[in-house]
Amino acid sequence: MFRNTMPRYEILSEESMAVLDSGWRRLVSEIGVEFLSDRALDLFRAAGQKVDGQNVFFDPDFLLEQVAKAPREFDVQARNPANSVHIGGDSMVFSGVYGPPFVREGEVRRDATMDDFRNFTRLAQSFSALDSAGGVICEPNDAPLDSRHLDMIYALQTLTDKIYMGNVVSGENARDTIAMTEILFAAGKGRDAGRTAIEATPALISLVNCNSPLRWDDRMLDAQFEYSEANQAVVITPFLLMGAMSPVSIPATLAQQMAEALTGIALSQLIRPGCPVIFGSFLSNIDMQSGSPQFGTPESAMGLLCTGQIARRFGLPVRSGGGLTSSQVPDAQAAYEGLMTMLPTFLAGINWVMHTAGWLDGGLIACYEKFVIDMQILEILQHEFTPIEFTEETLAFGAHAEVGHGGHFLGAEHTMERFRTCFYRPFLSSSDNYDRWMRGGAKDAAARAGDVWRKRLAEYEQPALEESIRAELEEYVTRRRAELGD
Amino acid sequence: MFRNTMPRYEILSEESMAVLDSGWRRLVSEIGVEFLSDRALDLFRAAGQKVDGQNVFFDPDFLLEQVAKAPREFDVQARNPANSVHIGGDSMVFSGVYGPPFVREGEVRRDATMDDFRNFTRLAQSFSALDSAGGVICEPNDAPLDSRHLDMIYALQTLTDKIYMGNVVSGENARDTIAMTEILFAAGKGRDAGRTAIEATPALISLVNCNSPLRWDDRMLDAQFEYSEANQAVVITPFLLMGAMSPVSIPATLAQQMAEALTGIALSQLIRPGCPVIFGSFLSNIDMQSGSPQFGTPESAMGLLCTGQIARRFGLPVRSGGGLTSSQVPDAQAAYEGLMTMLPTFLAGINWVMHTAGWLDGGLIACYEKFVIDMQILEILQHEFTPIEFTEETLAFGAHAEVGHGGHFLGAEHTMERFRTCFYRPFLSSSDNYDRWMRGGAKDAAARAGDVWRKRLAEYEQPALEESIRAELEEYVTRRRAELGD
Repeated sequence: MFRNTMPRYEILSEESMAVLDSGWRRLVSEIGVEFLSDRALDLFRAAGQKVDGQNVFFDPDFLLEQVAKAPREFDVQARNPANSVHIGGDSMVFSGVYGPPFVREGEVRRDATMDDFRNFTRLAQSFSALDSAGGVICEPNDAPLDSRHLDMIYALQTLTDKIYMGNVVSGENARDTIAMTEILFAAGKGRDAGRTAIEATPALISLVNCNSPLRWDDRMLDAQFEYSEANQAVVITPFLLMGAMSPVSIPATLAQQMAEALTGIALSQLIRPGCPVIFGSFLSNIDMQSGSPQFGTPESAMGLLCTGQIARRFGLPVRSGGGLTSSQVPDAQAAYEGLMTMLPTFLAGINWVMHTAGWLDGGLIACYEKFVIDMQILEILQHEFTPIEFTEETLAFGAHAEVGHGGHFLGAEHTMERFRTCFYRPFLSSSDNYDRWMRGGAKDAAARAGDVWRKRLAEYEQPALEESIRAELEEYVTRRRAELGD
Repeated sequence: MFRNTMPRYEILSEESMAVLDSGWRRLVSEIGVEFLSDRALDLFRAAGQKVDGQNVFFDPDFLLEQVAKAPREFDVQARNPANSVHIGGDSMVFSGVYGPPFVREGEVRRDATMDDFRNFTRLAQSFSALDSAGGVICEPNDAPLDSRHLDMIYALQTLTDKIYMGNVVSGENARDTIAMTEILFAAGKGRDAGRTAIEATPALISLVNCNSPLRWDDRMLDAQFEYSEANQAVVITPFLLMGAMSPVSIPATLAQQMAEALTGIALSQLIRPGCPVIFGSFLSNIDMQSGSPQFGTPESAMGLLCTGQIARRFGLPVRSGGGLTSSQVPDAQAAYEGLMTMLPTFLAGINWVMHTAGWLDGGLIACYEKFVIDMQILEILQHEFTPIEFTEETLAFGAHAEVGHGGHFLGAEHTMERFRTCFYRPFLSSSDNYDRWMRGGAKDAAARAGDVWRKRLAEYEQPALEESIRAELEEYVTRRRAELGD
């Protein structure tokens, strides 16, 4: 797991933070936040907040009291302990793209299938820099709607031994996810033992989006109730495309983001005090002429940098970032827009990073080639954000004494001792000279990325899983599929 | 001109800086630096430094005394005063790619010509975010070798009204550059008046590279003498590809960079105390398997961040950065490697940025499409590094009161008042939905960049220049071309 021990790049002054603080306080107390869930409204009412219909007017300090109950940092366990992660502090945990209904492979864009879902899951397993395939890495349109969550969770559990995300389409789907996770972590001692194990250390991170502005919908709240009750981590995420779901102002959007995230987090803490939560952010802007979402924008990068700083102020782990782009193909735009978000993701010290790999076309396409390009970018950034050691020995004075003036260091003793490991060596980027590159087929980065993912899939090895656990998971999926009528 | 008033991202601790300080002091005093110039050796000897053959052993504190004579900040004037720039402080000044012998346009790579040189110069004029075409924006292989500097300077002077760089191939070429610049700034009062004008405020920035490690060659030093004597700015640049020209260690390379830059800068201050200089850096690494230069590497980004901090420590303006890449085509790699350098360029607050636009294939190709992609990246970064205002008014409470819960802000009064200017709107990136993008010809970023540069050239308007000045420049070029035997 990657730890970012480089400095944070913070751009908010105390005065700016005070402005934002007054902003979210006014929003929650004067305009209020809607919760389309009687259970949520009951909890807030019982805790002394003013409920009017489905709208809740909050005492801002009550929210801070609830938020203070959330852990600053926590672990999430994978079935392979080597792949367990830590959320919060200086750790950064990366997961794949989430949600696209389409896939792109080479020149073809088409509906995503369950086979694609499995392939992306295998790719996620094969890249060590990626901590999780994520959850809905693409929408498997060929699987029955009511039961596809079972197929997805089963794939994530069996094709990877990394952490995975829970389904949030409904409370029922969340219960299935938790049940299957109990089976996976039962270690042959029965589901109750599995439940005990995952309540002690969460095994799921699940994404709960706000229907911004200032409204939490019933289905995602139902899922949040299940996960928080089971002490599983929930990412409480305002979904903000400035100009559509928030005002065309970064400060206004940040204040709204605080209002939405803090009220959602407070709900989790009323459901189960101390349960793990992540301050979520999905913040960009629309093109004001077309209304299309834009990514990798200057405004989104600034929002991201501020968001890291804001979440730290509340003592909460933070989710943001990813290889976001509007580009329809894995071209130069896809790369510069993706990096325009990913580099600030590192600068801001984001703890949980979704959409790290594979995102294309505003999140509508999961692209195989883009997945590989994003993994290359991630590896470069992980090396870039690893501090350099400055000691007398690193000055390599002896190498200078050996080489002298106008010479070269290729054969110096200092070089020979270190040449294998001294620099990060990219797996996708080409620095071949032009003739050699031409002889190699004149492949651009996207074409080479195609070679990489095909080779990775060909060489993929499924991680071992105890046969009894696999059988129990399959039995659960079969039974529930029948119950759901598919 | 862009001013970067965002915070600097500094990663060097005081302890690390002290290690580097001991490093360069030991290099200059114990190993010394070679100057293949009798004039330079005479100056150092007269100033009390120990000269042994062509090697100079320096008292480190003597170097600091000389460096302290250099201005912290200075102006460089363009013939159009609106395009004059400030070097140092929080200003960032951007110029085009420098030096490639090849060009790429669409699918074709070929030898660069004088027509290409003129076209890139026109493109530089047409993008307001670029402060200068630079100098040798590509090598015009079809122009006679001995006199092509005259053609290049003439093109830079007449096709743009921005600042330009001086030729550094020899002292003679530098004298021609200065003479033509005197003519341009004479305002009809004769070359002496032009000389007075450009000595009062420099009009040239010229690149002097070190033959690293620790050697300054005669031809570039001859040019440096000319420019420094005329009070024109010189960028004193160690040329460091780690593994070849410096040890495979970032600290060792930074210490070497300090030794080389400080000795070169000290020379300028002996030539003419107080003349303008820039602490230069060109720092990346080679691939240790192939020996090829690599760009956009984690190591180069870290070196860049440190370099900004180091130059500030010496009170000097700093040159580094650019859209550097090893990629052979304007693809995803070209974009992510370019941005891997350009974003740290902004974080480090680099003052003079060469190779901002057009660099491809390790600097061997000047690419039209990459030029446009780089200009898009530059515009995004300039907006990203413009601070946000946080005030009560920016919280847009009224917009929230108007829109309420679960609505949208598209038609809100706050939005309607600001929609034209609230977000940066890219000129190259596409956020079209997939169907619209397909109908538009399914062009990737490189293809759209091709459309942009062709349109820019078609619409280019040459900036006006007084006819008498043009005639005098032409006369100078004609006369000198004959004298040079071409």
